[in-house]
Amino acid sequence: MTSRGRVRTSSNSLDPNEDPVSGLERVMSNSNLEQMARQRRRHEEELLFSRQIEESDRTDSHEALSARYESLNYEVSENRLYRDAEKKPSHQLTLWRISRNRWFVCFLIGVFTGLVAAFIDIMVHYSKDIKFNWILKYLISKCGEEQRGTTAGCMWTVMIAWIGYNCVLVTIAAILVIYVAPIAGGSGIPQIKCYLNGIAIPEVVRLKTLVSKAIGVACSVGGGLCAGKEGPMIHSGAAVGAGVSQGKSYSLGIDFGVFREFRNDRERRDFVSAGAAAGVAAAFGAPIGGVLFSLEEGASFWNQNLTWRMFFSAMISSFTVNWILSWFNGRSGWLSWTGLANFGIFENKDYNIWEIPLFLLIGVIGGCLGALFNYLNTRLTEFRKKYVSSKFGRLFECLLVAAVSGFLAFLTIFAIDDCQPIGANPTATSTQINQMWCKKGEYSAVASLFFQNPEESVKSLFHSPINSFGVMTLVIFGIEYFLLTLWTFGISVPSGVFIPAILTGAAWGRLFGILVERLFPSVTGIDPGKYALAGAAAQLGGVVRMTISLTAIIMEATKDITFGLPIMLVLMVTKWVGDMFNEGLYDSHIDLAEVPILGWNPPKMSRNILADRVMRKDVVALERRERVSRIVEILRSTLHHGFPVVDRIEESPYESLPDYGRLKGYILRSQLFKLLENRIFEEEGTSSNALPNDFYECQDDDDQMKSLNDLGLTQYDESCWLDIEPYMHPHPHRVPLNTSLPFIFRLFRGLGLRYLFVVNDDNHVSSSVLVQFIFQIFQLRGVITRKDVARFRERRRNHEYHVDELYISES
Amino acid sequence: MTSRGRVRTSSNSLDPNEDPVSGLERVMSNSNLEQMARQRRRHEEELLFSRQIEESDRTDSHEALSARYESLNYEVSENRLYRDAEKKPSHQLTLWRISRNRWFVCFLIGVFTGLVAAFIDIMVHYSKDIKFNWILKYLISKCGEEQRGTTAGCMWTVMIAWIGYNCVLVTIAAILVIYVAPIAGGSGIPQIKCYLNGIAIPEVVRLKTLVSKAIGVACSVGGGLCAGKEGPMIHSGAAVGAGVSQGKSYSLGIDFGVFREFRNDRERRDFVSAGAAAGVAAAFGAPIGGVLFSLEEGASFWNQNLTWRMFFSAMISSFTVNWILSWFNGRSGWLSWTGLANFGIFENKDYNIWEIPLFLLIGVIGGCLGALFNYLNTRLTEFRKKYVSSKFGRLFECLLVAAVSGFLAFLTIFAIDDCQPIGANPTATSTQINQMWCKKGEYSAVASLFFQNPEESVKSLFHSPINSFGVMTLVIFGIEYFLLTLWTFGISVPSGVFIPAILTGAAWGRLFGILVERLFPSVTGIDPGKYALAGAAAQLGGVVRMTISLTAIIMEATKDITFGLPIMLVLMVTKWVGDMFNEGLYDSHIDLAEVPILGWNPPKMSRNILADRVMRKDVVALERRERVSRIVEILRSTLHHGFPVVDRIEESPYESLPDYGRLKGYILRSQLFKLLENRIFEEEGTSSNALPNDFYECQDDDDQMKSLNDLGLTQYDESCWLDIEPYMHPHPHRVPLNTSLPFIFRLFRGLGLRYLFVVNDDNHVSSSVLVQFIFQIFQLRGVITRKDVARFRERRRNHEYHVDELYISES
Repeated sequence: MTSRGRVRTSSNSLDPNEDPVSGLERVMSNSNLEQMARQRRRHEEELLFSRQIEESDRTDSHEALSARYESLNYEVSENRLYRDAEKKPSHQLTLWRISRNRWFVCFLIGVFTGLVAAFIDIMVHYSKDIKFNWILKYLISKCGEEQRGTTAGCMWTVMIAWIGYNCVLVTIAAILVIYVAPIAGGSGIPQIKCYLNGIAIPEVVRLKTLVSKAIGVACSVGGGLCAGKEGPMIHSGAAVGAGVSQGKSYSLGIDFGVFREFRNDRERRDFVSAGAAAGVAAAFGAPIGGVLFSLEEGASFWNQNLTWRMFFSAMISSFTVNWILSWFNGRSGWLSWTGLANFGIFENKDYNIWEIPLFLLIGVIGGCLGALFNYLNTRLTEFRKKYVSSKFGRLFECLLVAAVSGFLAFLTIFAIDDCQPIGANPTATSTQINQMWCKKGEYSAVASLFFQNPEESVKSLFHSPINSFGVMTLVIFGIEYFLLTLWTFGISVPSGVFIPAILTGAAWGRLFGILVERLFPSVTGIDPGKYALAGAAAQLGGVVRMTISLTAIIMEATKDITFGLPIMLVLMVTKWVGDMFNEGLYDSHIDLAEVPILGWNPPKMSRNILADRVMRKDVVALERRERVSRIVEILRSTLHHGFPVVDRIEESPYESLPDYGRLKGYILRSQLFKLLENRIFEEEGTSSNALPNDFYECQDDDDQMKSLNDLGLTQYDESCWLDIEPYMHPHPHRVPLNTSLPFIFRLFRGLGLRYLFVVNDDNHVSSSVLVQFIFQIFQLRGVITRKDVARFRERRRNHEYHVDELYISES
Repeated sequence: MTSRGRVRTSSNSLDPNEDPVSGLERVMSNSNLEQMARQRRRHEEELLFSRQIEESDRTDSHEALSARYESLNYEVSENRLYRDAEKKPSHQLTLWRISRNRWFVCFLIGVFTGLVAAFIDIMVHYSKDIKFNWILKYLISKCGEEQRGTTAGCMWTVMIAWIGYNCVLVTIAAILVIYVAPIAGGSGIPQIKCYLNGIAIPEVVRLKTLVSKAIGVACSVGGGLCAGKEGPMIHSGAAVGAGVSQGKSYSLGIDFGVFREFRNDRERRDFVSAGAAAGVAAAFGAPIGGVLFSLEEGASFWNQNLTWRMFFSAMISSFTVNWILSWFNGRSGWLSWTGLANFGIFENKDYNIWEIPLFLLIGVIGGCLGALFNYLNTRLTEFRKKYVSSKFGRLFECLLVAAVSGFLAFLTIFAIDDCQPIGANPTATSTQINQMWCKKGEYSAVASLFFQNPEESVKSLFHSPINSFGVMTLVIFGIEYFLLTLWTFGISVPSGVFIPAILTGAAWGRLFGILVERLFPSVTGIDPGKYALAGAAAQLGGVVRMTISLTAIIMEATKDITFGLPIMLVLMVTKWVGDMFNEGLYDSHIDLAEVPILGWNPPKMSRNILADRVMRKDVVALERRERVSRIVEILRSTLHHGFPVVDRIEESPYESLPDYGRLKGYILRSQLFKLLENRIFEEEGTSSNALPNDFYECQDDDDQMKSLNDLGLTQYDESCWLDIEPYMHPHPHRVPLNTSLPFIFRLFRGLGLRYLFVVNDDNHVSSSVLVQFIFQIFQLRGVITRKDVARFRERRRNHEYHVDELYISES
């Protein structure tokens, strides 16, 4: 994986003469190309537009982009086969079948995502059941009905059993992540975000990832970590989307032979976005939020048909979860259950206009706390990357976190004496452990926060009557949960940040509400629950910085739109405040992983960065008819994934400049492979027809896994010719040299490009025939890939925007 | 308006030789260009790709696109001034100011849209108040407490007063539409849909349109027509968006001098989409639905920042409406009121899985009824276009509709005897008119449907207990309302179709529910209200064929997400069934108006339609430096709105071929105007600096309104030169001749293009110097505008897809 496309472009490469010789060109130096390239560059320099970027604007960045991430192929290769396919009478049937299958696949995605969500929920339920009803019940019953303090020894037993059980579950989760599917660790949202952005993240949507993620998250949540199952649910949905639509599994090596028409990056990405939407829908009972999530994080352009199918998947998934859980909870057939994280319904729905400033204040607090969280977690992740890299170290850290989480919970219960009369809070479920620390007829408010499902705790904080929780309980709980979440997010288990952030925020939000109530005792109708909701939104918004979709998700999870405006105001303020300090958590992690993600908008202050600065100039071009030996040589010696096809490469009369001719099209490495594999060679006249009809959709990356040697090309084969023209994409996107970065960015973002070719538009026809000829041959000038665009980043320093150029690293 | 761009492209124009000489070229024939063009075409023919479309695939269409609609300028003209602006130190401040102002404008849009919505609602309230509490109360009290039948004479008085009052209001609405702002008629959604699609619909977002629409819709709804205020509300919101963001009004001739940075089509369109979202939010209390509406109908690409601002506007607008209406209804400060159309909360939220097939059946019925509605309404509109075109005729039709609506309502009450005991239906408001036809202690169920606000009737149908309405009542009411709505939609008053369609659908949906209940008497928990909701969704979906946004709107309007899946299933089935027969109502009306709208996806079966067939070849090109007299001549004699700039136009050595040189950029007519107006001429060296800094954003269409003669150019001026290069867009989008229609379509749709230039990529360098020269000069080959893309339409005949080519009409 790490060996692809090793092209080093330093941030100092503005002067073409000082370009370090790239890996690619070194490869080609045997044919004297290096010298040619140098000369070409010098020549280019004379032709290039004068660079108008002032030196002061350029700031060298130490940040990097990894060269190992490739773009997905979102563009249709409209080659001759593709066009001819339409002329066949069977094409009408194909159109109909594809359209029907798309809906069918979306239906399946919804069903399977719902099943996975229900599976996770039921797993968590049983693990909790074992913990509370078997282990604890047994131990506590042995301790008898003695009072707190006198049972210290007995409590130690309970605690050790508790922690031990948690550690077992966390070990399973950690082993799945560390040894089976490393990509399954963490929330999964950053990876899905990148995938939807158009980046091929290896193994992110494989079956083994899905299995590790689903079982792992059930274990880590069941194991009492400060982890949510919602982020992993979204990742699982995405993996389901990819798996179902491809009709085969790499992990199992099974090919069902169905849905062949969807086996390309474009269709797969669409189904992955449907799966992600279905995941959100299952996690929060929020189908609209799910669609908006997929759109906000992924879709670069609005395709209504796709959106409608995403919505369908999301609905089916939320429906499936409801159905299974309504059956599981004994109300079979009534579809009243919604989502894994159900925040309950607010009884007191009104709010008054004077509360708006208070919500804004909550937004500011959330923004600051979220930024602090992101800062600390990013530093921690960097530390972890450096010092906790061994498999054993990572496993040990997971166990440590599990132990500390359990220990802290017990410690808090001992330390804080917040006993409330039973019945005061109807929403708190009465488990034995809640009650046992307090007198008869009372229960421990602290225990009811620590020793419940996190979702139940959220409901408690949202809907409990005013005096259900002491101030000290909320303070301690909030701080502990904040720190534990900070530590947990990033260890090698599947763990989301949604529910922990919501819980932290609900704690301090409720505290805020209690303070407001004490400050204005004369005002009736203050419900700390509303403030808990606002605090939860603020904390979560401060951490993840999502906007539209988060509003929709929270609104749907509370099943009410009345609080829409306050939630939105809170999230907006939170985002503004948070963005003054740093990026969202997911974006920070994406940056740490050096993924070339494209943001929402082109960087500001980049109008004067032109294509000649953005593009890479080490192009390896093919002619429309090439000798097989040359193609094999190029495939062997370069790591490019796509090659421009030009009208003619030949020695030019002016010294020995390589001649990138006029751009005629481009062809992918995988397509060349397929051509070689099927030996579509000329010489005996046995060409083209041997290819499968769906060749034009051949963009499967696994074709590239095969080695060239496996093709078994003979000497004779290599002496043949290959006619590339019918198989290339005949009209790739092209821009002239003076195109600005925002223009290029919009093309990439709006059309999902992988390659953009830069052509010379400046070849004045001079009077001298010789010079005219020379100038003219510089038709294709370079190529722009996603990484070349993504390395320009907008940064804000001293209240001014600058454009930083990231370094492309080889790792 | 009707005189722009008279380019006639017949559907037979495949052979360039048979092209009718276009208007443009006739204009230029004085300079012998016509002959040149013919020769050029013949020459082109030899070079063009062989056309691979089989003759059988081409079907001549009698449908047309009107040439009078122009595209909005969504593309940034990245000329030198634009690039230089970034280098100024003040640019950082400008960036900040623009960003701040965008939010501020969105805030204002939300507030004003909310105010307009509240105004309409309060107007309707008072007009109803006058009708019920003054006129009817007085008349009925005169009639005394006599029983029905014996009071026939008295009833005539009541009916005539009622109809007379309605006619007065409808006359006001009709006069506003017929004499003040014709574009304000109807729902406004088709117009907004076109505008958001990128088409400049004249006057659609003017202040006078807004005023006519707002007052007009209050009158037409108050006047008892089968009309909703929701569609007009969306149009009003859009007009508010345009008005507020421009900081000036054409209708009033006022310029506040603010928000100058937003005075271009791109920014305006964004604000219009925010306004439309705010309009939906105000109309239905559905901010998410509003955002989805704007996205579904308009946005061609997903811009998260824009979406977030749209959401903000929508929230503010729904908040403003709530605030004002909560004040109006005596609960000041409590933001519990939501939207004009509030469908009430369902008490019985559950549904069982066996009900799903019933919902699907409702979807099928809705699809058929909706298709029937659209078919009949389209025929009626065509009839109206032909035979009811005079102003007086249109006014008379409005009055006729008002009178018949009133008369039918009274007739139905006489005809149907459906008296229910008072108290049986707690949701029916008890007005005197409801009661008077029945015995004491009873009220007329028919009257409660006809003589309430339509929104109240919807609530009645959704939430009334099972036996509140007789079967006959629902049948008659449903049929009458269907027919009246059919007649009303399209007359010259502002009138939406949402509420009437919902009401019709709720009636037959409730009927369906009653039938289900009678068929399965043993099953408890059947609530006809649920079926009424499904029926309402089905009827509305069948008529408008909206999907995602409609689901969200209905979910938000019922303030509940439980029915999301059934609603969605219903809408999906409805759309599938309806699409088998015809298009949605709005699309039909758009087609009738011959607007070149671009659909969601490129037409199927169009891979083999290439750029050379799509483009128009009558290009008028400019050189980078032109004599003012030539520019004036071109502006005077052509109607193009943009001109390509090429490197050199000169007589070529090969006969007298016009030479479209290499494409260097393009410039808009409005920009040329501005250059002429500011006399940015060379000769005395007083160039360029005189231009305002924001020239690069100069895309205001009103610049084109000015006559060339008003510029007062002297003979000396005309002898000067104009250097176009700094002002042109230097790297417009270009494609080679062999580009396929789907590719072009995606470019237009994804990037919001106005012009796409087709360049020759096929100029082989031959050995002969002369021939090489000739081939080479054909760099720019043609230009593609939105109309050229939009005229290719996908049609389905005999279960096969075909591509039709529409005719571009001159009207």
